[in-house]
Amino acid sequence: MDAEIIAVGSELLLGQITNTNARFISNHLSELGINVYYHTVVGDNAARLEEAIKIAESRADLIIFSGGLGPTKDDLTKETIAKHLQTELVYDVDAVKSIEAFFEKQNRAMTENNRKQALVLKGCDVLVNKNGMAPGMIYDDQKRTYILLPGPPKEMEPMFQFEAKPNLATRLHEDAQIVSHVLRFYGIGEAELEVRIQDLLDQQSNPTIAPLASDGEVTLRITANAENSEKAWILINKTKKEILERVGDYLYGVDDDSLSSKVAEILITNHLTISAAESLTAGLFQSELAANPGISQSLLGGMVTYTEQVKKEQLGMPKEILEKYGVVSAECAGAMAHLVREKFHTDIGVGLTGAAGPEAHGDQPAGTVWIGIAIGKDQPATYRLQLSGLRNTNRLRAVKFAFYYLIQLLVKKGYSKDK
Amino acid sequence: MDAEIIAVGSELLLGQITNTNARFISNHLSELGINVYYHTVVGDNAARLEEAIKIAESRADLIIFSGGLGPTKDDLTKETIAKHLQTELVYDVDAVKSIEAFFEKQNRAMTENNRKQALVLKGCDVLVNKNGMAPGMIYDDQKRTYILLPGPPKEMEPMFQFEAKPNLATRLHEDAQIVSHVLRFYGIGEAELEVRIQDLLDQQSNPTIAPLASDGEVTLRITANAENSEKAWILINKTKKEILERVGDYLYGVDDDSLSSKVAEILITNHLTISAAESLTAGLFQSELAANPGISQSLLGGMVTYTEQVKKEQLGMPKEILEKYGVVSAECAGAMAHLVREKFHTDIGVGLTGAAGPEAHGDQPAGTVWIGIAIGKDQPATYRLQLSGLRNTNRLRAVKFAFYYLIQLLVKKGYSKDK
Repeated sequence: MDAEIIAVGSELLLGQITNTNARFISNHLSELGINVYYHTVVGDNAARLEEAIKIAESRADLIIFSGGLGPTKDDLTKETIAKHLQTELVYDVDAVKSIEAFFEKQNRAMTENNRKQALVLKGCDVLVNKNGMAPGMIYDDQKRTYILLPGPPKEMEPMFQFEAKPNLATRLHEDAQIVSHVLRFYGIGEAELEVRIQDLLDQQSNPTIAPLASDGEVTLRITANAENSEKAWILINKTKKEILERVGDYLYGVDDDSLSSKVAEILITNHLTISAAESLTAGLFQSELAANPGISQSLLGGMVTYTEQVKKEQLGMPKEILEKYGVVSAECAGAMAHLVREKFHTDIGVGLTGAAGPEAHGDQPAGTVWIGIAIGKDQPATYRLQLSGLRNTNRLRAVKFAFYYLIQLLVKKGYSKDK
Repeated sequence: MDAEIIAVGSELLLGQITNTNARFISNHLSELGINVYYHTVVGDNAARLEEAIKIAESRADLIIFSGGLGPTKDDLTKETIAKHLQTELVYDVDAVKSIEAFFEKQNRAMTENNRKQALVLKGCDVLVNKNGMAPGMIYDDQKRTYILLPGPPKEMEPMFQFEAKPNLATRLHEDAQIVSHVLRFYGIGEAELEVRIQDLLDQQSNPTIAPLASDGEVTLRITANAENSEKAWILINKTKKEILERVGDYLYGVDDDSLSSKVAEILITNHLTISAAESLTAGLFQSELAANPGISQSLLGGMVTYTEQVKKEQLGMPKEILEKYGVVSAECAGAMAHLVREKFHTDIGVGLTGAAGPEAHGDQPAGTVWIGIAIGKDQPATYRLQLSGLRNTNRLRAVKFAFYYLIQLLVKKGYSKDK
């Protein structure tokens, strides 16, 4: 089944809102194994919408619309589709009642244009709108399936996920199961990773391997197609094994893991506590870690030690280290990790120092970063980065590298099972 | 001039990322008065991309592509366009140099597939990529203009805004000047703001007023068209004055200001120092502030005090406050602000505490936040928020409100001139 998603709304073409609906729907369709080959956005204009429908009909057998079901004159999706398919619109009794109830609840008089929202394509399956007034529709003709959804994501998302998607799943009724598994890498560039698995990328058919890079991370999505999910997983695991033999050193997680969620998971599972002293990242390491619910049992706190004075006074940094090695040094990062760990009585201490840019720090060029990680009484491990991004990209990359190195150290110490 | 935007990338069709590029480009095109009638998304597939190009050519005379300029085999936008337009790709000498320099700086060997990024359509205007490797292009044939941009928003956005857009502007309006001015508001919802200026929105023609809401902020973009920029500014300032008479209380900045850059500007200009003690935000306030270059003379440092123990031991929070009022309270936020200011010897101290969610904190529901701001020896000002988002939305909103209240307090104390 090949699908196209058509979002209707001039506000999208004016750049006032982003088409998040297409992403949401696509993501769910890919889970069902339905191919999406095109997204289209068209304005509130009947002629152009009909053109878009004709084009979609030439290349898809499932066409999903979002937007244009509301009460105003600009809302003309179902009217245009009804005319195009030469069918009529009829009032859905339940939808009329629910719209009337909505106004009653708000103590407002219902205006006539609101009743228009209860009109649906004759013969369609009505999708109930639990978060708004306009119902959705699934309409079949001989050749194709048309799904009409409201535009506001709060209404569209639950309607698609809990009503339209199960309906599609039962229709598909195929013997094939499609399973996807995402491998997540850090510390290696997309081009470099692809070179190392080029032959696998060239050979691929089932499973397929799709690389994706963003914010310094690279992912590979392995997707297999088999008669049941067990067999699909056998295919996936074989390909995964081949990939990891080449680039397994850079794997940090799978599927919905993030660097920070992976760190949080290891810390929480193993009842480890952590603190951090941050200079160039100024709290970003701790803030990213705190994005994970449940982290408060592991992340006790830490410091932002932006100036040398604060490093000395608040953290107890020996002035000899600053004088002898400078603030952008392995010695300083290691001491920050060690000192914050002692001060906050945690199992792990992390220190981040460097020159975020745009200015160099003395003789250290912008982008030079030192990360220190102290685990227990061990001598802190230190890592040097030479980043080349803008100030805030460098700060984010530094935090991600700190997470990445921390995962590696903890796994090496046996704190996490290999996935 | 009618435009169509084609985003290329299978990750968009799989729902892995959202097409924010189309929104960004559309927004800027609407300022130039260029109509956008369609957005299209197509995967990394040459045949389907060429189909999309043909359809776009039938309905647009400006076609803007984003994505598919990278080093991998999947990246085939320019190759497909070159073939379709029967022109060739040639190496751009400057782009080759800049890619080589990128790898040299990172101390990594350049792989051959990276050189491919320097290939451009013969005869095009090259758009320099200041934040990545692949250059962009503006290519004209007899009938149409084609603009090719990289996919990652960090690369695409500045390239479009500062290189492609001025190029388009000079083509369009040789005699007319288009000037835009953005007003930035916080602490007021989009719907509320629109109600207050509804008559201005209804009347608008020149200047136009475009509202846009994101991440709790609302902006109004005023765009005027006149024979020179002086006359355009007269139109803009008249409309701006009318707007600010209604909602000026919520204005925090203009144009490229952000809440954090505005705070940084006031602090740095007035030689004020600041520290923060953060609980639910766990370093995000300090990290966002540190995003601004030059902040190290004002942001000395601070603490993340995630647990009660750390609040007591490291910050010196009296246990009576925690026992009597609890950790999510005005008293605790005020004391955090006061204590961190004293401890770090700064002019200003900020305290943030609350329940980010998803769990409530005792009898304080998720989303309850207290902000404390201590300026000099004054009694700390405290503010309560009741937020309704998810955990990390609440954390970000809390930080933004802290910036917003801080700006208001500082301006009231005469530290900043009204813009």
